[in-house]
Amino acid sequence: MTVRNEDQSETYGLATSAGDLAASYRAVRAETERRAAPLSPEDQCVQSMPDCSPAKWHRAHTSWFFETFLLTPHLDGYTPFDPSFTYLFNSYYEAVGPRHARPQRGMLTRPSADAIAAYRAHVDAAMATYLQTRLPPDQRALVELGLAHEQQHQELLLTDILHAFSINPTRPAYEVVAAPAPRDPPPLDWIQHAGGLYEIGYEGLGFAFDNETPRHTTYVRAFKLATRPTSVGEYLDFIEDGGYRDASLWHSEGWALVQQEQLEAPLHWVRDGDGWLRFGLHGLRPLDPGEPVAHLSWFEASAFAHWTGARLPTEAEWELGLVKLDLPEPGFAAHPRQMESTRAFGDVWEWTASAYAPYPGFSPEPGAVGEYNGKFMINQQVLRGRSCFTPAEHARLTYRNFFPPSARWQVSGFRLARDA
Amino acid sequence: MTVRNEDQSETYGLATSAGDLAASYRAVRAETERRAAPLSPEDQCVQSMPDCSPAKWHRAHTSWFFETFLLTPHLDGYTPFDPSFTYLFNSYYEAVGPRHARPQRGMLTRPSADAIAAYRAHVDAAMATYLQTRLPPDQRALVELGLAHEQQHQELLLTDILHAFSINPTRPAYEVVAAPAPRDPPPLDWIQHAGGLYEIGYEGLGFAFDNETPRHTTYVRAFKLATRPTSVGEYLDFIEDGGYRDASLWHSEGWALVQQEQLEAPLHWVRDGDGWLRFGLHGLRPLDPGEPVAHLSWFEASAFAHWTGARLPTEAEWELGLVKLDLPEPGFAAHPRQMESTRAFGDVWEWTASAYAPYPGFSPEPGAVGEYNGKFMINQQVLRGRSCFTPAEHARLTYRNFFPPSARWQVSGFRLARDA
Amino acid sequence: MTVRNEDQSETYGLATSAGDLAASYRAVRAETERRAAPLSPEDQCVQSMPDCSPAKWHRAHTSWFFETFLLTPHLDGYTPFDPSFTYLFNSYYEAVGPRHARPQRGMLTRPSADAIAAYRAHVDAAMATYLQTRLPPDQRALVELGLAHEQQHQELLLTDILHAFSINPTRPAYEVVAAPAPRDPPPLDWIQHAGGLYEIGYEGLGFAFDNETPRHTTYVRAFKLATRPTSVGEYLDFIEDGGYRDASLWHSEGWALVQQEQLEAPLHWVRDGDGWLRFGLHGLRPLDPGEPVAHLSWFEASAFAHWTGARLPTEAEWELGLVKLDLPEPGFAAHPRQMESTRAFGDVWEWTASAYAPYPGFSPEPGAVGEYNGKFMINQQVLRGRSCFTPAEHARLTYRNFFPPSARWQVSGFRLARDA
Amino acid sequence: MTVRNEDQSETYGLATSAGDLAASYRAVRAETERRAAPLSPEDQCVQSMPDCSPAKWHRAHTSWFFETFLLTPHLDGYTPFDPSFTYLFNSYYEAVGPRHARPQRGMLTRPSADAIAAYRAHVDAAMATYLQTRLPPDQRALVELGLAHEQQHQELLLTDILHAFSINPTRPAYEVVAAPAPRDPPPLDWIQHAGGLYEIGYEGLGFAFDNETPRHTTYVRAFKLATRPTSVGEYLDFIEDGGYRDASLWHSEGWALVQQEQLEAPLHWVRDGDGWLRFGLHGLRPLDPGEPVAHLSWFEASAFAHWTGARLPTEAEWELGLVKLDLPEPGFAAHPRQMESTRAFGDVWEWTASAYAPYPGFSPEPGAVGEYNGKFMINQQVLRGRSCFTPAEHARLTYRNFFPPSARWQVSGFRLARDA
Repeated sequence: MTVRNEDQSETYGLATSAGDLAASYRAVRAETERRAAPLSPEDQCVQSMPDCSPAKWHRAHTSWFFETFLLTPHLDGYTPFDPSFTYLFNSYYEAVGPRHARPQRGMLTRPSADAIAAYRAHVDAAMATYLQTRLPPDQRALVELGLAHEQQHQELLLTDILHAFSINPTRPAYEVVAAPAPRDPPPLDWIQHAGGLYEIGYEGLGFAFDNETPRHTTYVRAFKLATRPTSVGEYLDFIEDGGYRDASLWHSEGWALVQQEQLEAPLHWVRDGDGWLRFGLHGLRPLDPGEPVAHLSWFEASAFAHWTGARLPTEAEWELGLVKLDLPEPGFAAHPRQMESTRAFGDVWEWTASAYAPYPGFSPEPGAVGEYNGKFMINQQVLRGRSCFTPAEHARLTYRNFFPPSARWQVSGFRLARDA
Repeated sequence: MTVRNEDQSETYGLATSAGDLAASYRAVRAETERRAAPLSPEDQCVQSMPDCSPAKWHRAHTSWFFETFLLTPHLDGYTPFDPSFTYLFNSYYEAVGPRHARPQRGMLTRPSADAIAAYRAHVDAAMATYLQTRLPPDQRALVELGLAHEQQHQELLLTDILHAFSINPTRPAYEVVAAPAPRDPPPLDWIQHAGGLYEIGYEGLGFAFDNETPRHTTYVRAFKLATRPTSVGEYLDFIEDGGYRDASLWHSEGWALVQQEQLEAPLHWVRDGDGWLRFGLHGLRPLDPGEPVAHLSWFEASAFAHWTGARLPTEAEWELGLVKLDLPEPGFAAHPRQMESTRAFGDVWEWTASAYAPYPGFSPEPGAVGEYNGKFMINQQVLRGRSCFTPAEHARLTYRNFFPPSARWQVSGFRLARDA
Repeated sequence: MTVRNEDQSETYGLATSAGDLAASYRAVRAETERRAAPLSPEDQCVQSMPDCSPAKWHRAHTSWFFETFLLTPHLDGYTPFDPSFTYLFNSYYEAVGPRHARPQRGMLTRPSADAIAAYRAHVDAAMATYLQTRLPPDQRALVELGLAHEQQHQELLLTDILHAFSINPTRPAYEVVAAPAPRDPPPLDWIQHAGGLYEIGYEGLGFAFDNETPRHTTYVRAFKLATRPTSVGEYLDFIEDGGYRDASLWHSEGWALVQQEQLEAPLHWVRDGDGWLRFGLHGLRPLDPGEPVAHLSWFEASAFAHWTGARLPTEAEWELGLVKLDLPEPGFAAHPRQMESTRAFGDVWEWTASAYAPYPGFSPEPGAVGEYNGKFMINQQVLRGRSCFTPAEHARLTYRNFFPPSARWQVSGFRLARDA
Repeated sequence: MTVRNEDQSETYGLATSAGDLAASYRAVRAETERRAAPLSPEDQCVQSMPDCSPAKWHRAHTSWFFETFLLTPHLDGYTPFDPSFTYLFNSYYEAVGPRHARPQRGMLTRPSADAIAAYRAHVDAAMATYLQTRLPPDQRALVELGLAHEQQHQELLLTDILHAFSINPTRPAYEVVAAPAPRDPPPLDWIQHAGGLYEIGYEGLGFAFDNETPRHTTYVRAFKLATRPTSVGEYLDFIEDGGYRDASLWHSEGWALVQQEQLEAPLHWVRDGDGWLRFGLHGLRPLDPGEPVAHLSWFEASAFAHWTGARLPTEAEWELGLVKLDLPEPGFAAHPRQMESTRAFGDVWEWTASAYAPYPGFSPEPGAVGEYNGKFMINQQVLRGRSCFTPAEHARLTYRNFFPPSARWQVSGFRLARDA
């Protein structure tokens, strides 16, 4: 299901051949339900902080997208499942009208998880009909966007339930499996990259978000990029060397956060006597030094880099550097896996030094779906790659994820760069 | 199940005769389950503001009381259902140890509602065994306290789910019944009461909370007391006369609240064009002028009284005045009922002019249960009577309920008093 | 300048004989300026928390009272000093119109301290003219109220600058004098008081605030009252015995405050190695065990009483008990003085067990000045007596001061009571 | 006093020839005092929001810099003026030790404005001695840094007192002068710039901040840049066209700010019936359509650009575009002046599309002064140019000013760019 784009080496993209769209739709929708299946009705209802959303809400909002942008305008005779859902499950689309306040999403005990299942079935049945017809290109593109959008929410469904479980004193596990024996990561290596004019960004036939375009020229100085993300063991060294107590390593805003929140380790690390456990979808476990470190804010990634004398890569460096590697194609995992080779990639999102801004010549999609990316292009940092929660078909090397630099509840790590 | 106490005219009290304790236990516990039955697992999990608790939590905490104070110390061989519940379902008993933070109660998606049902069954089975034995008086008193405590939570379970439903845009109904035709209340009448030395407070054989004791002498000036609570229709007149816009009617702190929260009507009243609807456990309905007005803060009750030139009664006036009335014995209702006679009573709690303070000579119970009442005796106002949510067996004319003057989510109304 | 009121033994009151009013006016106004004199223009401008006001504001607001309620309505040809001052220096009188937001009082760098001096001179000159005329009784009463009001602000001017200086790391002293040698307080003694019907409240010819009236009958049980306030040394024992770490001694709200603010001593006590210093208008000094303890919240006073097995007196008990004592008539001091006899009184306000509520039959003054007291009769506790900052002519045994139970920046201590 | 740097066309820089350093020192220090002179002691003490600092604090902190980094370590026999000043007037230099909390700077009524004048004189006298010696290059550089630092605070002193005066209901004027007749701005013109590889950043002999270096290559696409900033009149059109009510023009975070703060115009614009006045250091005045619009957040600048179909320039575009213009060399003004030609420049800082990030190859200064710029390189946007408050000798075309995108209290405007 990946697509080779000759212009930009290997990318990971959603299938776009005409016949496959209905199959893609069914596959993506089924994956959402698969991820929600281990969750009880209560688990699916809770919102543990304003940045998170209930699992039930993710399931409904992704259906709302298809209903609002495709079925209602384009399928003759379509009857919306419930008129109130337009209000309840809009997220941030101002153009579509008023919406339920984000921090109140966890208050929606009704509609129930069962009602949401019925909503999904209703939308899926109508979409099955709709996808039998030959769609004009703009509607095809909207279906693809809707599927990519749902894949994003598949990832968020897991980061959000991880957060909810993490504040439950009983520390529930989403998936129970045996832990591998902890071991050290492979040694860190560097790849040298010459300076010069390069092109980055997406330009191909497959689906990409508008923020990955246009593909454009950029000038890059020579640099070196680490061949794998920073490991749990390396990060533990930083902690034990007093990294969280040395203001000189931190940005001013990061240091304020460290002091205010009394940070001393990544999110989901739990004190255990003198050491640490980490909480994940597998429950509470001992630290494994060979995993890529995750659940870091940009501030923590940056302070670590400062501590080593290195820095974070820009997103251009990251994209150019990674294209040269022979990357694994990791599938889903409920927690970042031990790194097995120096080419490790794909189990944690990687913070970059780049602020999230429009590419030169960027223009957002017209209409409500154009609200999708551009309106968040401030006070966010770009993350590249994918995490173990990211559906494999959703990943691309040109993909631009973004979060505020203080965000820690995502599966966010980093790899180092240096001036050459 | 009520008890006549010759010293203080009719009171409403819990049966205390030895043989009835097990039956009382079963009846009270069953009532809790009956009230929770219409609620889905999600409904039972949510906490819509820090003052409220999830229905599931109410069900568990009341069981925790019996487990902690009776079964664990006094029933040989008793095994606690789950050790983590001691932490999760403690409310404010500092003496029992640390507890789950109150505002986080809604985050407990696990244990599930089913697990709580199993917890209740476990406790009930053990209590059945325990109650077969002849209990020493202090343990008997603790059982009675535990039942009275559970009855309090039966009321809170409903006020809290009402609040949760009220912020759900779909406005769910807890109970669906036909609305009676709106009608006017009976005319307001006044009962004259001579000044002098009187006794108030509880002194009898039945159960009462420590804060109702000791029965003591107090001097009261002559006064007049309204024979029924203020009605919705009368309160609507106050609103329409600009009551919420006239600072001179309000206490300084109340006026600040009116401005900050932009108050313009009781809680759960909803604008409907130029008029109002009210939300309740029966869902959204037109105003009924004949109901007693409810969901008021003390500030609103006081401003209304000021507007009429009257005042709120002290709790002594209330108790002395109500004892002289021939009161109905109202049962449960999901919303305050139309008042049918000028002796209306019992569908809304009634704010008084009295701050919640210890009676002269008051001494709290020793030990953890003594934390029950005394520690809240500051910055709260006394409410007297009962509401339509109060279990009938739980009510007494000497009962002292208390809430901060800003509280609006209780079924709180008032009746007027005047100097004679 | 005190007035004997046969009904209620000795009271301390403002002179009311006709000829003295102008002299009283001049004396009170001069005292305000005397208190402000040691303060720089910057000192007079700052507002260190919303509860406090700048010294300059106190000087202006007290003048505003005379201008607004007397000169503008009653002195022919009076020209207000500056029309904007009506807005700037109104405090909480809703009836007079909008006002500058209280927490913004410290932002008024202009008008300058010099401009306020000119404002005071302008008002004083007009008042001198006005007071030469024969005033109708209601205007006389308003002048007396204005003077009592200014005396209240004389006290607040000092508590507020004490707070401002306390958060300045350079710890300035308002007045530099040598400290006496620390010594122990006189032994604590108790006076027994029989139960029965008594009268409390003000009824005399002199000035009193409306909240002290009407004098009325109350029933009091037999009690014992300490002959002096609790001392610094006694309070230190409470601290060293772990009083701030034992939840069982505290009201629920008080304990929350202890934890949230990490309280471990009275306000203005400063850690000094293992011991304590206290900051006051004399600067930083060693603790003196013989002083009455001050700058306590009601919660702290109540927790101490609980620790000793005693309690706080009601305000009726306080008034009845103190009337029987042969009290000193203390003058001004910049800090509570060592207690010299067991009849110590008057250097610290004394928290009582009574919530601030209207006396039976209370009716506030009509018009704007009637906002003075009644609108604060909720969520406040009564303090009785006077402090070393209180102008001697302002004190009465019937005086009802009031603050929220969390307030600590006043010179607030307490004396103990017991059931007899 | 400007320096020609052949590599980068005209720049504005501080003189660095050896003989001039003492003269520069005297000139810069005198300018600070000149700016503070119209302010009363109270004006100099107040802090109207946490982002602002008191004028007195600016005067002291700039002296603290010379005392801490030069006199104490390098001048034999130097005695610090007051040891407590190290703590009181440190700003954010973690390496120098603890410091007075920023939001509490307005509480420092002592030391007085006079004491700060004495502090400045003490430091100036010692610096005069110190600057007579031949300084090693690193100390020379520190003196230059100290002067540039003081020039920054000269600007902040004015933006901060403007904010303080703006919340004073009496609306004081810092400087009283007659207003020119309002008039329209010159027509807006565009300069075309070819795409290609260019160099930006500072590289010369004069002083520059570390964040302007290293000069480096960057690739820029063809673009057009407006020849003058956006005017008040043009911005008023945006307001009147409903710009503040159209969510589609705004970034998500900007729109949240508009709603939360109920924004409807730039900071310091004041409703006047149906129209607007603007408050400035000249007091309240009618709008002048010919001035560059100022006191905008980045969100407002960006929304305006969106409304016109244009965009903000990147900082590279701005620097490259402005270098080609024949710019005026504006001196100080207390408010942005009417634009007289299409080459208008220098009265308002200009927001750019660029996030504040290190230039490729950037390395901060070692030691405490290295905290100066790098630690703020997150969540800030770059502003270029200078404002009417900026000392002329302080400005450079390579200068990188930065503030959070929500900041409005600076003299911040913008000019438009377009893709060519």
